Amino acid sequence: MNGAEIERLIQLLGRLPGLGPRSARRVALHLLKKRETLMQPLSTALAEAAGAIKPCSNCGNLDTIDPCSICADPTRDSGLICVVEDVGDLWAMERGKIFAGRYHVLGGTLSALDGIGPDELNIAGLIARVKTGQVREVIVATNATVDGQTTAHYLAERLADTKVPLTRLAHGVPMGGELDWLDDGTLATALKARRALT
Amino acid sequence: MNGAEIERLIQLLGRLPGLGPRSARRVALHLLKKRETLMQPLSTALAEAAGAIKPCSNCGNLDTIDPCSICADPTRDSGLICVVEDVGDLWAMERGKIFAGRYHVLGGTLSALDGIGPDELNIAGLIARVKTGQVREVIVATNATVDGQTTAHYLAERLADTKVPLTRLAHGVPMGGELDWLDDGTLATALKARRALT
Repeated sequence: MNGAEIERLIQLLGRLPGLGPRSARRVALHLLKKRETLMQPLSTALAEAAGAIKPCSNCGNLDTIDPCSICADPTRDSGLICVVEDVGDLWAMERGKIFAGRYHVLGGTLSALDGIGPDELNIAGLIARVKTGQVREVIVATNATVDGQTTAHYLAERLADTKVPLTRLAHGVPMGGELDWLDDGTLATALKARRALT
Repeated sequence: MNGAEIERLIQLLGRLPGLGPRSARRVALHLLKKRETLMQPLSTALAEAAGAIKPCSNCGNLDTIDPCSICADPTRDSGLICVVEDVGDLWAMERGKIFAGRYHVLGGTLSALDGIGPDELNIAGLIARVKTGQVREVIVATNATVDGQTTAHYLAERLADTKVPLTRLAHGVPMGGELDWLDDGTLATALKARRALT
């Protein structure tokens, strides 16, 4: 009814995460009303990013250069590698400006249900990097989910013979969190991992 | 941190309705992972739609042709005009396949708060269409909001001297709706507009 161009646009927008058919229609209509200021620039930005962005052959981050700007930054500590599941997690760490080492993006987690084994993840690359001998510590920052924890334990096994210390992010009460609203698992973990009040 | 291309993409995606900064990042990452199958096609679809789609000079609908495919369709009844606020409302009517007349898209509602008066809407075009003498009935299908109702009453005043009958959509209990969950206004309207049980 709307012409093939609009139907095709709505269909593609509906494949974005978080957008269903109804919100895809709403977005398409919004775009058609802002053709000059939003629709054309977005089309250009998509084409440019699709052409320019590629995965870093060293760590798996997405950037316009390879090695990526984090791997190429000489001020960052090459002795620290933070292992994350996904580029989104790397972005989260970088937003916090809390880490000045390097990253390694696995590209997912081990998952027997989804048929994802070690060969589907960027694990061989991590082991090769650790075996260069320049790495003092590997921080495993996979998510605190079952699959994330499984992956962390698998990495610990695979990296055991390198003798490089592995650490993981602390689990506990989130800052600003109220005990009353916390799940039992987090509360139990936080109690077990209690630290001296200094 | 991510390269200017990704930042620009995230910023533009964040301006779409229903997407905040967080979901814009999620969408950007999803797109970067599906460069061939989603990102490039979406860029092309946006560019094509932006180039091809224009408002119909007769009714305000968006289409690749002008007059639009609805105005150009000889099987539709030119004697019936359904007045809607927005192209999205026209799409909703068309999805239902319940109406075989023509449309008129106002492009919004009168709103004293937002400074939108009759001149900002496509009202002059509607009056001109009604005055051609071919129109038997104007169905005012503005939303059942304060602004929508205000606009409907304004149209009734402006079209009074044409003597063409104006109607509006019925208000009442939505199909499948339960009385217990209905707001008082709808229930009162439905009671006042009760009809013989035939």
